[in-house]
Amino acid sequence: MKKTVKEIAELIGGQIVGDPGLVVTGISGIKEAVAGDITFLANPKYFPLLEKTQASVVITPFDTQALLKTIIRTQNPSLAFAKLMSLVVPSAGGKYHPKGIHPTAIIGNGVSLGKDAAIGAYTVVEDNVSIGDKAVIHAGCYLGHNSKIGRETLLYAHVSIREEVIIGDRVIIHNGTVIGSDGFGFATVDGLHHKIPQIGTVEIGDDVEIGANVTIDRARFDKTVIGKGTKIDNLVQIAHNVVIGQNSIIVAQVGISGSTTIGKSVILAGQAGLVGHINIGDNAVVMAQSGVNKSVPAGVAVWGYPAKPIGIARRVNAAVQNLPKLYNTITELKKRIEELEAKIKDK
Amino acid sequence: MKKTVKEIAELIGGQIVGDPGLVVTGISGIKEAVAGDITFLANPKYFPLLEKTQASVVITPFDTQALLKTIIRTQNPSLAFAKLMSLVVPSAGGKYHPKGIHPTAIIGNGVSLGKDAAIGAYTVVEDNVSIGDKAVIHAGCYLGHNSKIGRETLLYAHVSIREEVIIGDRVIIHNGTVIGSDGFGFATVDGLHHKIPQIGTVEIGDDVEIGANVTIDRARFDKTVIGKGTKIDNLVQIAHNVVIGQNSIIVAQVGISGSTTIGKSVILAGQAGLVGHINIGDNAVVMAQSGVNKSVPAGVAVWGYPAKPIGIARRVNAAVQNLPKLYNTITELKKRIEELEAKIKDK
Amino acid sequence: MKKTVKEIAELIGGQIVGDPGLVVTGISGIKEAVAGDITFLANPKYFPLLEKTQASVVITPFDTQALLKTIIRTQNPSLAFAKLMSLVVPSAGGKYHPKGIHPTAIIGNGVSLGKDAAIGAYTVVEDNVSIGDKAVIHAGCYLGHNSKIGRETLLYAHVSIREEVIIGDRVIIHNGTVIGSDGFGFATVDGLHHKIPQIGTVEIGDDVEIGANVTIDRARFDKTVIGKGTKIDNLVQIAHNVVIGQNSIIVAQVGISGSTTIGKSVILAGQAGLVGHINIGDNAVVMAQSGVNKSVPAGVAVWGYPAKPIGIARRVNAAVQNLPKLYNTITELKKRIEELEAKIKDK
Repeated sequence: MKKTVKEIAELIGGQIVGDPGLVVTGISGIKEAVAGDITFLANPKYFPLLEKTQASVVITPFDTQALLKTIIRTQNPSLAFAKLMSLVVPSAGGKYHPKGIHPTAIIGNGVSLGKDAAIGAYTVVEDNVSIGDKAVIHAGCYLGHNSKIGRETLLYAHVSIREEVIIGDRVIIHNGTVIGSDGFGFATVDGLHHKIPQIGTVEIGDDVEIGANVTIDRARFDKTVIGKGTKIDNLVQIAHNVVIGQNSIIVAQVGISGSTTIGKSVILAGQAGLVGHINIGDNAVVMAQSGVNKSVPAGVAVWGYPAKPIGIARRVNAAVQNLPKLYNTITELKKRIEELEAKIKDK
Repeated sequence: MKKTVKEIAELIGGQIVGDPGLVVTGISGIKEAVAGDITFLANPKYFPLLEKTQASVVITPFDTQALLKTIIRTQNPSLAFAKLMSLVVPSAGGKYHPKGIHPTAIIGNGVSLGKDAAIGAYTVVEDNVSIGDKAVIHAGCYLGHNSKIGRETLLYAHVSIREEVIIGDRVIIHNGTVIGSDGFGFATVDGLHHKIPQIGTVEIGDDVEIGANVTIDRARFDKTVIGKGTKIDNLVQIAHNVVIGQNSIIVAQVGISGSTTIGKSVILAGQAGLVGHINIGDNAVVMAQSGVNKSVPAGVAVWGYPAKPIGIARRVNAAVQNLPKLYNTITELKKRIEELEAKIKDK
Repeated sequence: MKKTVKEIAELIGGQIVGDPGLVVTGISGIKEAVAGDITFLANPKYFPLLEKTQASVVITPFDTQALLKTIIRTQNPSLAFAKLMSLVVPSAGGKYHPKGIHPTAIIGNGVSLGKDAAIGAYTVVEDNVSIGDKAVIHAGCYLGHNSKIGRETLLYAHVSIREEVIIGDRVIIHNGTVIGSDGFGFATVDGLHHKIPQIGTVEIGDDVEIGANVTIDRARFDKTVIGKGTKIDNLVQIAHNVVIGQNSIIVAQVGISGSTTIGKSVILAGQAGLVGHINIGDNAVVMAQSGVNKSVPAGVAVWGYPAKPIGIARRVNAAVQNLPKLYNTITELKKRIEELEAKIKDK
């Protein structure tokens, strides 16, 4: 990205206070911003961050005071920022995407190819796959029979989409990820594990992003579901029949066991593990490495192993860290009791 | 699956009590079953589950009482169920498997191709590979030199089998899995890590299933071994020289360090980690997220970090969760000691 | 490997004490060595290991006493061993590497191909990639636009190198690994997560080895960096803007969050997790499964969740394991206090 403040103000319909010639090179959240970035601030309670952010330019509400920093005032900073984002992001890696259908791509029978869809070298598209307009499938991907890829969806190299899996619009899937492998289900008879057929599928909502080498298993029956707008980091495991709501964040190496349900706007931090058949409510937060063995109500943050609401978990942890001191205290109390016992006896 | 109770009773040689025209659409364990499923019950102690299961049909022993539910009585329900399973499962995803050798598959010199083996597009089979009868290798796989794939074995797209690896019969390997990558072994000289050649291999027994994006390293010398009938979930790491017995269950994201030995019918639950050079006895269970740093005797279940026998681990955990209360108790005891000390002094 | 002691002594310039005709079949560290191996011993404090090692031959300093075991005396055993290693290792799996450019490899425009570089079947090399002399790229790899592969670097099948990523010399990358996928960065506006473009890259130093199915994300700006000589095991996650120093060891399934800095010769044991924006000093050690939520000074070993210096962590853990006994002690003290209270009252 390389745009002047003036150009950006025109794109988003805003009023500049400061240097219109300043060149913006990046776009970011207010806390993560670095010099050259543009960011935004919508909620008055975060106004103190205006002083601290390293962003060079901030999109603000109309009533924001002039600052040392250049600002662009708008009616709805969130919306303006989202608009700017949508204009800027597609250009990022897009120049390296394949164009058209590579002659070595194998396209099965009955495949429906959207307008301006692109397919890279050695990608295999099985029969009856549907690929949306402007979808981009990089080299060496595999799209199983009857799978469906939405419009403007982007698959990087070496992605495996198994049979009948449905991927929404504007989804991004990074290299090596597998969607639709069989769920891990066996019926054990006399110590032998007999495979239970996994005849369901996976449905990925619009605007989902999935990192590299992720695994999402198909359902036994019905569907494993990833809700619209949810973002999944690298090496995450999502078992069969898991259902994840909209706009949740699943950080790297999280594991979610079978049939667990995750609400909307949930955050599962890195390496957290969840047992099967539980429910994580909307806006809940699971801290990193936590082991969650029961349902978490909406809005509650949990931590630890087994995971507890964070206030309790912190109190328990503080008590644990303090244990060596506690042993000293108890040794001392014991001594005082012995002294008392001796004195009582003496009398 | 879509079979009437009558058809199934004929397949397994059983006696129907109930509706022979009922259509069965799935097959499952008694706890996981849903409407339309057939399941089985062999052990009399689980008879109460007959009332609770959502299965539509249950295979039972001959002496089972008539129920509201349709049952099929047989002499050996376990065997009957296993037989039904083996008849039904192959048809599940089989309709989408490749047939024959795709013209773009590269077949090296000296490759032995079994009868009715199938190889998908752009799969690379190096020299001197042996592929068993009816084996199915999906698109974009890589089979290294001198590797051996058993009969009826199924590899989904993008599997890497490295040189000299041996895969048994009826094995299923999901997408993106790597078998035979180098073990992680270095000799450190003056702070520099020099690679120790990993010249062993991997041997996967018959009837093993391995999930997606799993990694199983080749041995330094000799073999990393996965025993017959063992099932491995997604994103599991198995280091060099690990030996796993028959019919064990390794759940997603487990990590097993080098030279550790796992017995038969062991269960390693999700995200558990095991150090190297230990031994996990037959029928042992390692609970989810546990960190195992010493050997576990046969039949013992362990939990926690470091993992302890589950009775001890639960007692310790209960004590830990109770710690904030304990601190209150101790503060109170201290006060009472002080009062006693004051009283003694007064006298 | 199959060389006589005499041949090896000539290669490294050493003096044999023992059997020059003995055949050496492997090379290893002194603790891990098995019969047939050659190993080395440089540090006098490890001399007791000379009695215990199962190695058949040991490279030693000149002043080492004759032993029952065959030894090769040299001026600098470490250097001699490293030299032997470098002569022997390349031959290990090398006989199975591709030779030349396979006719099905796709080579983009402006690609610079080093002398004697080899590229396997169905590998896709995008425009303007640079591949060093004697580099070996196995089948089914993907090298993105403008990426750079150093000389003698070895990529096994199905590796994805994304656009603009730089890989040093003599690097080894195992199957299924992804280098340069987008960092996990979003700006959340009204509950919707908008992608923050990840326009940096990844730089892998010389002599790095990376296991199978690893994921290393590209930086938001600038570079994610893996220092020279660092070794990374399977299924490791390295987030955007992480910087790792030279000669560190990252064991399987470790996760390192964004912008964290790891020093030189650091060891991160299996399944450890590190939060973002912290610093791990040179020679620090993070024990297996630890959760590190703050910076670790140089030379310090940490353990636990949250991770503490190992002495403290062990004391805390001992106290935790001892808790059920502590509850008994406290119950007993309480009783003794009650008895004292009763006696005091009586007087």
